[in-house]
Amino acid sequence: MHFEIKQIGTIYSPFKKMEEAPIQPRFSDKPGKIEVFPEYKEGLKDLEGFSHIILLYYFHLAKEEQLIIRPFMEPDKPKGIFATRYNKRPNKIGLSICEIDKIENNIIYVKYIDVLDQTPLIDIKPLVPLFDFRNIEKIKVGWLSNKKERPKQ
Amino acid sequence: MHFEIKQIGTIYSPFKKMEEAPIQPRFSDKPGKIEVFPEYKEGLKDLEGFSHIILLYYFHLAKEEQLIIRPFMEPDKPKGIFATRYNKRPNKIGLSICEIDKIENNIIYVKYIDVLDQTPLIDIKPLVPLFDFRNIEKIKVGWLSNKKERPKQ
Repeated sequence: MHFEIKQIGTIYSPFKKMEEAPIQPRFSDKPGKIEVFPEYKEGLKDLEGFSHIILLYYFHLAKEEQLIIRPFMEPDKPKGIFATRYNKRPNKIGLSICEIDKIENNIIYVKYIDVLDQTPLIDIKPLVPLFDFRNIEKIKVGWLSNKKERPKQ
Repeated sequence: MHFEIKQIGTIYSPFKKMEEAPIQPRFSDKPGKIEVFPEYKEGLKDLEGFSHIILLYYFHLAKEEQLIIRPFMEPDKPKGIFATRYNKRPNKIGLSICEIDKIENNIIYVKYIDVLDQTPLIDIKPLVPLFDFRNIEKIKVGWLSNKKERPKQ
């Protein structure tokens, strides 16, 4: 079955090419700007009380789908795509959790961003630990367990 | 701009109707089964070391889009859709963070599930606190701040 999704806004960042972008917002020190198209602005009501949002976006520059990839974090050991956040996924949807700096009109300013400039936005959801986690202290991260920070390039 | 996404599997749960489903996995006490279609099975490699996954799925029974909704948690105070996890979103993509029980072949068994039976799966991503959070202790949840558990029905 196939479904159609639509762009509801645009993410702006200082990163113009994949090689420049940090692999996750956690490793970014650059702020970003999320423009929600004016026709969806009303949906931002009440978001200002939240500190973190989950952004869903479309990996518009991703190449062909691959089920096995070689991650930056461990390039000599190929991994299944669903055990990574890579962009060559069967559905090219990316996810970043970002901290809100401020919201002005239909623009959300976030403290750190990891996505490419001009990335199409497809959804914004509030991060709510009460909804999302039980046993947060027991989270295990498999092959990423001994990775503490972004490898130097 | 529009994009096409495809079903890559199916989520099975005990919930046949919206009225039966818990509003988030955090409030569920029922296990679920995630079938990844055989052609995508290879992508599950290395996922078994992770304890939690982020499921993205298509709200196949969601009705027409609404930018302002009345949430279960506070029905007398309408909220912007992006400040909620409701299904009547501009793009009907749902997100649940689930704890893995076991993975057998192309089936992931999760301890708790909140989605409707037969929901189309569109992506699986590992939950990696190192990637996703900085300042986790500072997360603020706006209008949900004083909500501690699911309201009684």
